[in-house]
Amino acid sequence: MTENEVDKNSSIIEKHDINRIEPINWWVGFKDASLQLLVHHPNISKWNPEISYHGVSIEKVHQADSPNYLFIDLNISETTKAGKFNIVFKKENEDDLIHTYELKSREKSAEDYVGFNSSDAIYLITPDRFANGNPANDNSENLNEKTIDRTDDYARHGGDIQGMINHLNYIDDLGFTAIWSCPLLTNDMFQGSYHGYAITDYYQVDPRYGTLEDYKTLSSKMSEKGMKLIMDQVANHCGLEHWWMKDLPFKDWINYQENYEKNREDWSSDKSITTNHRRTVNQDVYASKIDKKNMNVGWFVSAMPDLNQRNPFMAKYTIQNSIWWIETVNLGGIRQDTYPYPDKHFMSKWAGAIMHEYPNFSIVGEEWSLNPLIVGYWQDGANNGDGYKSNLKSPMDFPMQRLIVDALNEEESWDTGLVKIYEGLANDFHYAKPKDFMIFPDNHDMSRIFTQLNGDVTSTKMALSYVLTLPRIPQIYYGTEILMHDFDNPGDHGLIRSDFPGGWADDTVNAFTGEGLTEEQKDMQLFLKKVLNYRKNSKAIHDGKTIHFAPEDGVYVLFRVFEDETVVLILNKNEEPIQLDLNRFEEMGLTEKTLFNIITDAKVVWKDSLVLNEKGSTILSTKL
Amino acid sequence: MTENEVDKNSSIIEKHDINRIEPINWWVGFKDASLQLLVHHPNISKWNPEISYHGVSIEKVHQADSPNYLFIDLNISETTKAGKFNIVFKKENEDDLIHTYELKSREKSAEDYVGFNSSDAIYLITPDRFANGNPANDNSENLNEKTIDRTDDYARHGGDIQGMINHLNYIDDLGFTAIWSCPLLTNDMFQGSYHGYAITDYYQVDPRYGTLEDYKTLSSKMSEKGMKLIMDQVANHCGLEHWWMKDLPFKDWINYQENYEKNREDWSSDKSITTNHRRTVNQDVYASKIDKKNMNVGWFVSAMPDLNQRNPFMAKYTIQNSIWWIETVNLGGIRQDTYPYPDKHFMSKWAGAIMHEYPNFSIVGEEWSLNPLIVGYWQDGANNGDGYKSNLKSPMDFPMQRLIVDALNEEESWDTGLVKIYEGLANDFHYAKPKDFMIFPDNHDMSRIFTQLNGDVTSTKMALSYVLTLPRIPQIYYGTEILMHDFDNPGDHGLIRSDFPGGWADDTVNAFTGEGLTEEQKDMQLFLKKVLNYRKNSKAIHDGKTIHFAPEDGVYVLFRVFEDETVVLILNKNEEPIQLDLNRFEEMGLTEKTLFNIITDAKVVWKDSLVLNEKGSTILSTKL
Repeated sequence: MTENEVDKNSSIIEKHDINRIEPINWWVGFKDASLQLLVHHPNISKWNPEISYHGVSIEKVHQADSPNYLFIDLNISETTKAGKFNIVFKKENEDDLIHTYELKSREKSAEDYVGFNSSDAIYLITPDRFANGNPANDNSENLNEKTIDRTDDYARHGGDIQGMINHLNYIDDLGFTAIWSCPLLTNDMFQGSYHGYAITDYYQVDPRYGTLEDYKTLSSKMSEKGMKLIMDQVANHCGLEHWWMKDLPFKDWINYQENYEKNREDWSSDKSITTNHRRTVNQDVYASKIDKKNMNVGWFVSAMPDLNQRNPFMAKYTIQNSIWWIETVNLGGIRQDTYPYPDKHFMSKWAGAIMHEYPNFSIVGEEWSLNPLIVGYWQDGANNGDGYKSNLKSPMDFPMQRLIVDALNEEESWDTGLVKIYEGLANDFHYAKPKDFMIFPDNHDMSRIFTQLNGDVTSTKMALSYVLTLPRIPQIYYGTEILMHDFDNPGDHGLIRSDFPGGWADDTVNAFTGEGLTEEQKDMQLFLKKVLNYRKNSKAIHDGKTIHFAPEDGVYVLFRVFEDETVVLILNKNEEPIQLDLNRFEEMGLTEKTLFNIITDAKVVWKDSLVLNEKGSTILSTKL
Repeated sequence: MTENEVDKNSSIIEKHDINRIEPINWWVGFKDASLQLLVHHPNISKWNPEISYHGVSIEKVHQADSPNYLFIDLNISETTKAGKFNIVFKKENEDDLIHTYELKSREKSAEDYVGFNSSDAIYLITPDRFANGNPANDNSENLNEKTIDRTDDYARHGGDIQGMINHLNYIDDLGFTAIWSCPLLTNDMFQGSYHGYAITDYYQVDPRYGTLEDYKTLSSKMSEKGMKLIMDQVANHCGLEHWWMKDLPFKDWINYQENYEKNREDWSSDKSITTNHRRTVNQDVYASKIDKKNMNVGWFVSAMPDLNQRNPFMAKYTIQNSIWWIETVNLGGIRQDTYPYPDKHFMSKWAGAIMHEYPNFSIVGEEWSLNPLIVGYWQDGANNGDGYKSNLKSPMDFPMQRLIVDALNEEESWDTGLVKIYEGLANDFHYAKPKDFMIFPDNHDMSRIFTQLNGDVTSTKMALSYVLTLPRIPQIYYGTEILMHDFDNPGDHGLIRSDFPGGWADDTVNAFTGEGLTEEQKDMQLFLKKVLNYRKNSKAIHDGKTIHFAPEDGVYVLFRVFEDETVVLILNKNEEPIQLDLNRFEEMGLTEKTLFNIITDAKVVWKDSLVLNEKGSTILSTKL
């Protein structure tokens, strides 16, 4: 077939008679030749679909429990060319219904989708709260939640994709190489939709954040800077106002569907269906059947229907949706919400399907456990006793996050203080690949690190220094660089996710320009910028060998080494000056060498001892 | 060779010209045909040993650094008969030195040394503090520590092996099936020797505890009752007054030997040689070399020289000593002190050598870590990333011990209280063989459980109920049954190891007879007796399947099931009466069945709900 023939093939008359077909388009050239279309249209089950396009065949058509759905299994052969074709739905004595469907060419090769890794530093953004780049899209008449009110921490504030685009330089200059934005898809809920985790349309950007084009623009502008875009996806649940909730395709599309359909009118009063949150049942060989069931099929909250991934159509839908977004906005990674809540075998299949298509991709999953045994279980390559093979590259290091806070807040003693992170890091022996873990001083669901550390700037710098020199993938929440906090009501979600100053036209303080920032804030901004920009090119931090020395006299020293680059992190809890005896570190081979303080640029000759004048972190390197 | 010839062979003239040869005898019939004799005698290195006994050959004679030692490698062929022979040491122009050595026959087959397991319940005794069965041996003119003073918690009190023998019935009646006594070997130290962990002669029973014959009597009387004797052994260190400290065989017999020999006179002032106690270096892939060294070669305390097991003669000495005691006093298990402190590869070799000779034996090792990753690492069968193969059957479950205390002391909430043990037990998924772990409410090194639980009798019963129904090997410290405590100075070792009332002739309270005990003490004694005696024959507890239900409303329920026996443990934190809905446990198949309360003998029909009147533990069983 020549190019001309392709053109002829695609010169069809486009029609969109069908209410909804998802995925809304697809691509040629995947390893997996199958595609399952969800078709939603009144009484569509009575119609027979036909396709006439070279390489595309209908393998099977499935009716659902609702008459308004069809699921069409397509096979897209290896030789299929990109193009458009019509799906023609036929029914006796009726005019055909026609829906034009497009198979696109893939814009880059599967191997070139390189996910985030330990050479990256990720900036986490709550999009409603970062910057309002386009005030015109703050509200929409067509959406359920009408309030936009910056004085209400749980209302929409107007932040959007354009806001992120406008401030990419700021993020890039700080030294971040990736952005994870909380979900940008439509949350058409009646209230509290600003967080983004109650998705009501898996194929639509929330109009208050912008358009799909905006999302693509953000992505392409990031690519130009060599930055990676990480999408926050939610496989476990949707929002109660999801379009399909009014007409569920199968009797088991969501969990506890019968309860829901019975009590739909007074739903919020049904507490019996919420999950027990006992996530250890995923590992526990003694867990009761009922606890396992409650954990995995229970709803996260009553406003978020729990999707039933054991329904194969739902499973396929979710996998295809993830791939659709990877291709459409050129993702550099996915962050998957509430990882241990869906069926764990499905999650393995989901991650496996993505990694199969994109071998260099990255997925980070949220398992909020302080137990290294539990988080370790979820990592790809873990040697699990039950044979569970997770395909998840990056668990989140909640255990280490907590230990960092404890280590810095606690008094030093035999088993408190810095020894907590020393011994916590020793747990890496258990992990399949420690440097693929994501570490963070805080995130959008917990008190700001500055608050967790009781407003101690020095401790905050120590925490950040550790996070950024560990063999990990670091993630920093927006505003950490200017000491954002939630002192007024610690842990309050709305407060944690406060507006970034300067993101709104009428802000009197502007953290992007520095206008109105306190000296402490500016100093922290500069500190983070220096560490991040050093880290950006540091092979020692990205991939180096790690050696650490047990805390002694309130000082903990960690080395990262790659060829001739050695990075030394010294965490010192002593308020009064002390002399650090360098002879203890003889095995590091630094004697007589000159090192540079990456914050002050001061030179230090590594010999005999080092005076540490006050509590704080010191980062030295053999390279500047 | 006929029996007569053997007799002839052994009709030798016995002589003991040599100061010391260890092991002091050996046996025929081991899988390992090698035996290495340590010979200690003035200038013995100038003499040549000869042996003429069928099947026994000298393979090699090693000189040491000190002229007063020889190490003789013997091979004992499979066909060697038991008997005595002379080792003849020859030197030009000198009369022979002759030492008669005995190879005994083994009294039972290797397979019949069955170690403790989950069908056992172990009573832990500090022998100086349990019962003074023989006041005649309380003191000895030949020993360094002269004080015997029951008013001094760190002095000797006079308890002994005869005391244990006298009260075996008491221990047996309580329902214990094994005894672990803290070390009974000579601790000829100048002070504080009562604890037993500063051994100064590895082949001698401390005269204050009795004789080797007493030890054998204890063992045989225990065997008659079907009880197992567990010996507390110490491979890591000896006491500073060990006989060899005056004349060390090799330059590297102990660690930091040079420091010691230089500062011998003012030894206690040298702090530089003590271990850093950073036990995670055994696992930590990032640990510095110097920390690893300090951990493994550092002395435990300055009064306990650290034995260098990398010296192959020391290694062999320690292995042979363990085997000598197994054979000599017919052990049913070994408890090894400070397991992670010696060279870990040696410990694997040590345990492996024992398990190779005694395939059904048991060893429990002390790794005082609250981290399941660390304790799990040490268990035989652990799938360790570094390939370390431990031959240790039973680690101690320090993590669970702490969680039990936390679970009972904390207020109930989402992540405090009973959920601590629920999630702690879930960690079993990680262990190679959870039921081989030893669990304990406390031991001789920590506050009494009654103290840890703030003097709450009900909580103490709850802790004991859990310990005794878990898939574990339970160990209970003497005196727990009468609520012994250390309220006056919590954690003080001397106080923890208080005298058991009734163990001394002039005691006004006698816990063996019940005389003078409070009602609370008698009640606890009876409670433990009932649970232990139920446990003794409970296949469900020994080997049953475990199913537990996440704590809800302050109630945690654990089931153990073996064929038609189901044991139900209910831990209830509610002070006010509540109804436990039994429908939640439907999967256990108990509906309409009659169960028995193993403490009150009351019958309960398992249906609808169960009223729990007050805080406490309830143990029900389908069998009585």
